Amino acid sequence: MGKTSYTITVCSDSVGETAEAVVRAAIRQFEAPQVKIKRHMNVRNEEELRQVMEEAAESGGFVAYTLVQPELRAAIKEQAIHLNVRIVDVMGPMIQAFVDTFADEPKRLPGLLHRLDADYFQRVEAVEFAVKCDDGKDLNAILKADIVLLGVSRTSKTPLSVFLAHKGKKVVNYPVVPEIQPPEHLYGISPGKIIGLTMNAEHLLKIRSERLKAMGLPLLARYASLDRIVEELEYARTLFDRLGCPVIDVTDKAIEETAGIVMDLIP
Amino acid sequence: MGKTSYTITVCSDSVGETAEAVVRAAIRQFEAPQVKIKRHMNVRNEEELRQVMEEAAESGGFVAYTLVQPELRAAIKEQAIHLNVRIVDVMGPMIQAFVDTFADEPKRLPGLLHRLDADYFQRVEAVEFAVKCDDGKDLNAILKADIVLLGVSRTSKTPLSVFLAHKGKKVVNYPVVPEIQPPEHLYGISPGKIIGLTMNAEHLLKIRSERLKAMGLPLLARYASLDRIVEELEYARTLFDRLGCPVIDVTDKAIEETAGIVMDLIP
Repeated sequence: MGKTSYTITVCSDSVGETAEAVVRAAIRQFEAPQVKIKRHMNVRNEEELRQVMEEAAESGGFVAYTLVQPELRAAIKEQAIHLNVRIVDVMGPMIQAFVDTFADEPKRLPGLLHRLDADYFQRVEAVEFAVKCDDGKDLNAILKADIVLLGVSRTSKTPLSVFLAHKGKKVVNYPVVPEIQPPEHLYGISPGKIIGLTMNAEHLLKIRSERLKAMGLPLLARYASLDRIVEELEYARTLFDRLGCPVIDVTDKAIEETAGIVMDLIP
Repeated sequence: MGKTSYTITVCSDSVGETAEAVVRAAIRQFEAPQVKIKRHMNVRNEEELRQVMEEAAESGGFVAYTLVQPELRAAIKEQAIHLNVRIVDVMGPMIQAFVDTFADEPKRLPGLLHRLDADYFQRVEAVEFAVKCDDGKDLNAILKADIVLLGVSRTSKTPLSVFLAHKGKKVVNYPVVPEIQPPEHLYGISPGKIIGLTMNAEHLLKIRSERLKAMGLPLLARYASLDRIVEELEYARTLFDRLGCPVIDVTDKAIEETAGIVMDLIP
């Protein structure tokens, strides 16, 4: 890498989440560069836009933008030429494809103005549901859930629940422990709603050991012994068989990937 | 709208999260269209790609893709012409801007292969932290947190905590109630870590009333009376003043927008 740090400017007439997500995905394609993302949100007129572009011209780098209002879209192209700043239109090609393919016209309203819709509130409620029902805290919630995740400790139940909640799904997760009877409610719902999570035993041993270290606890605990882990995983496997639910092996899978598989199984 | 339903295909050699996010943002620009998103992930060779494109050609619509391997990028362009399917390259222009601006070369590895990095684990841990520390469940966690959110009931503390956790921030939230003494720990940390959340009283009344209705509880509860809400908000304001923390009015703000403001205050 030639430089030690890069600056990428994100400019949006809404929040800029989409543009920043694409920037972050692109950054992952390069060797650990020190990239500073400067986000300007709610840019709503040409004067504000001019300030963003002048700042970007000074800091170097390029500007990724999501602007939907035609006058701002025209203005950023002018400013880019004028100030010699490279710009990337994150949403434009997608919106154009939509228009061309479906012969529809865009509303051209910044995201925020129509973001607080039913879908938005459903997602917020789903996140609250996931948090309140984490780790078996509310057994009755199993009956209200779209998805029930089961797995032994450290099989990514919590982050997976929250990630799925962001997609609007009501998720509960319940820990599987050989010494504790699984809740009766599990047998009262459709097995199609239940997902079992499993993991390679050695991998789980590593994760649990790191967990104990991070908590400052001795590694000798039974929790982080291979015998105990194999016992737990076998008990979980028997439970999953009895419930007749699909099982996902999350070893080496990112939360996003596991979530994709869950969404395919329970659309 | 001419058609009743549209299909958009997402094709990725990784998970396809980024492409789907841009598709969803674009969809919001159109009047409530019934769009079906069909996501194909882990597409790793030309044969798999051909199947995706043939399916897309049959279902109509267009294909949004994130492919980083050069042979797949070439193949999708050929297939698009051959099958007459419109394609949108979600990451390509951004990666090109990066290369041109910073004179760097991309790794061309699908996201998954280098997704399980330190940054990823930090974010997963932050989500677990937020869930475990929701609603004042662990007072000692205040000392370990990057961000402490304070607010009366229904000021979006939980979803905001989780959203910030996805950005890698360790967040605790603590409910403000006039009858309960705020935790001593609040005075032991930098006020720069604390954020107060407030909301217009009438708006909060509406939200709380809807909440009670959803829970099947009578609306007469003091919880959803304007007097009580004004009292709570005034108490919260006094507490925020005493702590010397910044206050964000979340009325009509989307979680993403409030999160953006928090990240500007506590980078």
